[in-house]
Amino acid sequence: MGGAGAEAVIPLAAVVGILYALWQWFVVSRVKVSGYYQSLDTGNGYHGGPVFEMDRTEEDAGKGTPDERIIMAKCAEIQHAISVGAKSFLFTQYKYLSIFMTFFAIVIFLFLGSVNSFSTKEQPCTYTQNQNCKSALANAFFTTIAFLLGAFTSVFSGYLGMKVATYANARTTLEAQKGIAPAFKIAYRSGAVMGFLLASSGLLVLYISINLFKVYYGDDWEGLFESITGYGLGGSSVALFGRVGGGIYTKAADVGADLVGKVENNIPEDDPRNPAVIADNVGDNVGDIAGMGSDLFGSYAESTCAALYVASISSFGINHNLSAVLYPLLISAMGIIVCLFTTLFATDLLKIKAIPDISSVLKRQLLISTVLMTAGIAVVTFAALPKNFTIFNFTNDKRVKNWHLFLCVSIGLWAGLVIGYTTEFYTSNAYSPVRDVADSCRTGAATNVIFGLALGYKSTIIPSFAMAASIYTSFRLASIYGVAMAALGMLSTVATGLSIDAYGPISDNAGGIAEMAGMTHEVRRRTDALDAAGNTTAAIGKGFAIGSAALVSLALFGAYVSRSGIGSIDVLDPRVFAGLMVGSMLPYWFSAMTMKSVGTAALKMVEEVT
Amino acid sequence: MGGAGAEAVIPLAAVVGILYALWQWFVVSRVKVSGYYQSLDTGNGYHGGPVFEMDRTEEDAGKGTPDERIIMAKCAEIQHAISVGAKSFLFTQYKYLSIFMTFFAIVIFLFLGSVNSFSTKEQPCTYTQNQNCKSALANAFFTTIAFLLGAFTSVFSGYLGMKVATYANARTTLEAQKGIAPAFKIAYRSGAVMGFLLASSGLLVLYISINLFKVYYGDDWEGLFESITGYGLGGSSVALFGRVGGGIYTKAADVGADLVGKVENNIPEDDPRNPAVIADNVGDNVGDIAGMGSDLFGSYAESTCAALYVASISSFGINHNLSAVLYPLLISAMGIIVCLFTTLFATDLLKIKAIPDISSVLKRQLLISTVLMTAGIAVVTFAALPKNFTIFNFTNDKRVKNWHLFLCVSIGLWAGLVIGYTTEFYTSNAYSPVRDVADSCRTGAATNVIFGLALGYKSTIIPSFAMAASIYTSFRLASIYGVAMAALGMLSTVATGLSIDAYGPISDNAGGIAEMAGMTHEVRRRTDALDAAGNTTAAIGKGFAIGSAALVSLALFGAYVSRSGIGSIDVLDPRVFAGLMVGSMLPYWFSAMTMKSVGTAALKMVEEVT
Repeated sequence: MGGAGAEAVIPLAAVVGILYALWQWFVVSRVKVSGYYQSLDTGNGYHGGPVFEMDRTEEDAGKGTPDERIIMAKCAEIQHAISVGAKSFLFTQYKYLSIFMTFFAIVIFLFLGSVNSFSTKEQPCTYTQNQNCKSALANAFFTTIAFLLGAFTSVFSGYLGMKVATYANARTTLEAQKGIAPAFKIAYRSGAVMGFLLASSGLLVLYISINLFKVYYGDDWEGLFESITGYGLGGSSVALFGRVGGGIYTKAADVGADLVGKVENNIPEDDPRNPAVIADNVGDNVGDIAGMGSDLFGSYAESTCAALYVASISSFGINHNLSAVLYPLLISAMGIIVCLFTTLFATDLLKIKAIPDISSVLKRQLLISTVLMTAGIAVVTFAALPKNFTIFNFTNDKRVKNWHLFLCVSIGLWAGLVIGYTTEFYTSNAYSPVRDVADSCRTGAATNVIFGLALGYKSTIIPSFAMAASIYTSFRLASIYGVAMAALGMLSTVATGLSIDAYGPISDNAGGIAEMAGMTHEVRRRTDALDAAGNTTAAIGKGFAIGSAALVSLALFGAYVSRSGIGSIDVLDPRVFAGLMVGSMLPYWFSAMTMKSVGTAALKMVEEVT
Repeated sequence: MGGAGAEAVIPLAAVVGILYALWQWFVVSRVKVSGYYQSLDTGNGYHGGPVFEMDRTEEDAGKGTPDERIIMAKCAEIQHAISVGAKSFLFTQYKYLSIFMTFFAIVIFLFLGSVNSFSTKEQPCTYTQNQNCKSALANAFFTTIAFLLGAFTSVFSGYLGMKVATYANARTTLEAQKGIAPAFKIAYRSGAVMGFLLASSGLLVLYISINLFKVYYGDDWEGLFESITGYGLGGSSVALFGRVGGGIYTKAADVGADLVGKVENNIPEDDPRNPAVIADNVGDNVGDIAGMGSDLFGSYAESTCAALYVASISSFGINHNLSAVLYPLLISAMGIIVCLFTTLFATDLLKIKAIPDISSVLKRQLLISTVLMTAGIAVVTFAALPKNFTIFNFTNDKRVKNWHLFLCVSIGLWAGLVIGYTTEFYTSNAYSPVRDVADSCRTGAATNVIFGLALGYKSTIIPSFAMAASIYTSFRLASIYGVAMAALGMLSTVATGLSIDAYGPISDNAGGIAEMAGMTHEVRRRTDALDAAGNTTAAIGKGFAIGSAALVSLALFGAYVSRSGIGSIDVLDPRVFAGLMVGSMLPYWFSAMTMKSVGTAALKMVEEVT
């Protein structure tokens, strides 16, 4: 497959993905909104708002009692409140984010531009011999542009994800009146909107940027792909805000609502008398949807950029084989197509008849996407990569065959499945670990905390081995390029991963709305079942995010080491060992700060409400 | 100072330390035991036993009411029960330990002996050129002997520590009737027995072993000090059992007693109606005294052995300068003398008038021992070490001056003080962190857990920087030998550290006994104050143990790398990185197992009692 082939396939897949997301949104929107309800005073000063009215089947026709209309009106009101809250949180976050990003963009430009004292003169390339590369100032400019593009794409996808989630939660509740299957489908389709929009727009923007930058850079691929790395940095800078800010808000609202409800007033979860419940629901949308989206987008963009940079200084970069250099993007493009087929299984092919089917369908999503993607990786690898090539390997070049890359990407992909299944085992109420913890609550909070922490710690064992195995294999086969591609393999099914992940908060919200709107026990039972499966899938999403982040950080580290020409890093060097010591402490420092923030915010929330 | 000087100073200091410990024991035993009380049926089938009678001052003389005698009899009975429980636990532990140690000793002998297929022929030395060293079989034999000696010394010191602690707890309670100062002194003196016995006997046995082994090894110092490393391994094998086994028992009994008392029956801590309380007190003695003792002994023995081994293949080892090679032992000997003077401040020089004086006196113990020891290190360093020498540094030799070593040992010592003070700040109820956590309990267990965990995580920041600074400095100045000596610097005041540490469980027990024997509110208030200070000191002991263990593990790792002739360890090697990944997970695996054990044991205990 030549460069022209790659040119066509990547944007095509991205556009198909975006169209598919929009179609899913359209399907969700078919659960209709009609008319306005009359001044329904709920005591919090909120009057008026949209009312949903579902497409009624024949047997439903006679059931439009006034009671039912009030319940619907309530659903609409709650949804509106959640949507307003989420929007207001995100806009506040974006305000701070934009200040930070502007400042950071200036720093990037000044630091990179000053390398050759802002000279506009071309300089000899570092790796491509006998060729001139663009000036450091040009690299600074394009890196800053890429940085802002990455940030914008992340914000855009996260915001749309939140929009569709808050659009879908009440619709899921209303569909739950019909049965478990329609409710599940609405929730899952809404998740898919988020998943496909993010994966596709991330790919499309990156592809367009590379092509536009290429107009300026021409044959200077070193500079081109060095500038493109800004895209990854932009994505993860947003993720820092989305994940930490959103995460603190989510958990503080969750704990706060629980404290107000259970502790202070002894009222059940999601009770309408507890005003903190809306905050909890808002938190699910801004933290677990917008935040998780920007997190996975950050990892995805970074691993792609790390792979692209290493590729640009490897043999196919120096030989200007575009389709081989764009291999990471081709993998992602194939991932979108594979996830599209996978989603059909959840929304159309597999039937949900009873509650246990939900988690089985979700689990099969992971398996189906992984199996199909393995075939997809094989197709892309053997079509795009030359049979033999060399990969830049710190001080020397490493001879690599194309099937080595197939193994690298596949092991990342399958490690993701192992992480997903392990997370499911440790967080689903269908298996013994969670049941043991629940059982330990009989004797109070102390044993619960001990067993819960022990369980959490234990759940790291298998994923760590999976990570170690994929790092070892991919590193050995194709050096740092292999690690970056393993990360991308894990993230290649990101559209499905995010669909499953976003499904969680949507059904959580749906449950909250059902409770607050005073729906029947039967509806509540259905939304609870959706919610229980959703808690597990949210945990799976976190597992993917962390696993891929670990691979990505190694890939980025490798790209940095490559660029700066460091040959080896000796643990027996005092600086390295002292650095390891401080580095191993940093997660605790960071966790302490975030946990303290969650605790303080939750306490303030309790004071505010009571 | 020649070799003869070192020969005299080391055993002298060790013997002085042992005599000092025995003298402290004698002072404690002056709180007299006299007569037997008459069949006091407490409903648990225990009849008869020793009764304590304190030396009565004139004004006490008329107070020997029957009530008071019953209280004393109760104290004696409780002490006896704790002592029996602790002995029974330790003997059970020793049973399993001896099986493990026998097996491990055989493995060591077979593995080391088989290096040259059990040949008794001498072999060329690895580092000393043109000289023959003893056979691998001889090394295997002496390593096994050293291993067993290390294990035995650890068990012996731990057992005696437990004995004196269970001997002192009721005596502390009885002295608390007189006032806060006498009670504090008894508790501290008992702690000192443990501290000095362990530090001195550890040093003495090591010194004697080296001299006895030397009779066989003669000029083969490489083999001599390679065999001696078995001593460290023996010490830490026991520590594994003492710390993990004892730790699980302690915490399970603690949680179990709390659950039975507070949760199940709503009775206060240390209530005599709660049978799990005795188990809790037993746990303090076997876990926090015997276990902590073997833990610190393990670190102490290992750092000494690592330093000795690296010294033996460095210039003063090859030049057969014994006093320079025995520099680590000289530092420890100086440490015993310094700690002896330091203890005088607590037991005689500083006056305790009110409750806040307790923690201030304990804190000053750390400061005084550190300041005095800094001078002591200077004396030993400039007397024992040549001005210039070379230290083995993986693939080359490193030129080192004697004042470099002074800095290495001192930075370890002062890092220990920083860790101690940081731990005090984060665990004492006198400062804001603990008060904030207590405050967060107002809103229930959730915020308490969040704030508590955040606090624990935060407390790692300063110690990690202190550790990183001492590793960097000592590594840079004197390579792996510097790191081992920094560890030994941190442990040089181990006698004081252990005294403070053992003081904790003794006063904790004293408080329990006061409560169970139904002593007056005033006595209980005093023992509570002792106990509160003791909780902090127990935490400080753990800080020292972990800090020194981190340094020691690096030193041991360095000694291993030296012995096996590895020149560098590259993080960019896939095997190393995959290993880091798995290694970083291991603490979680291990924690999960121990926490699960604690939880399960606590639950079983609750079932047993209720």
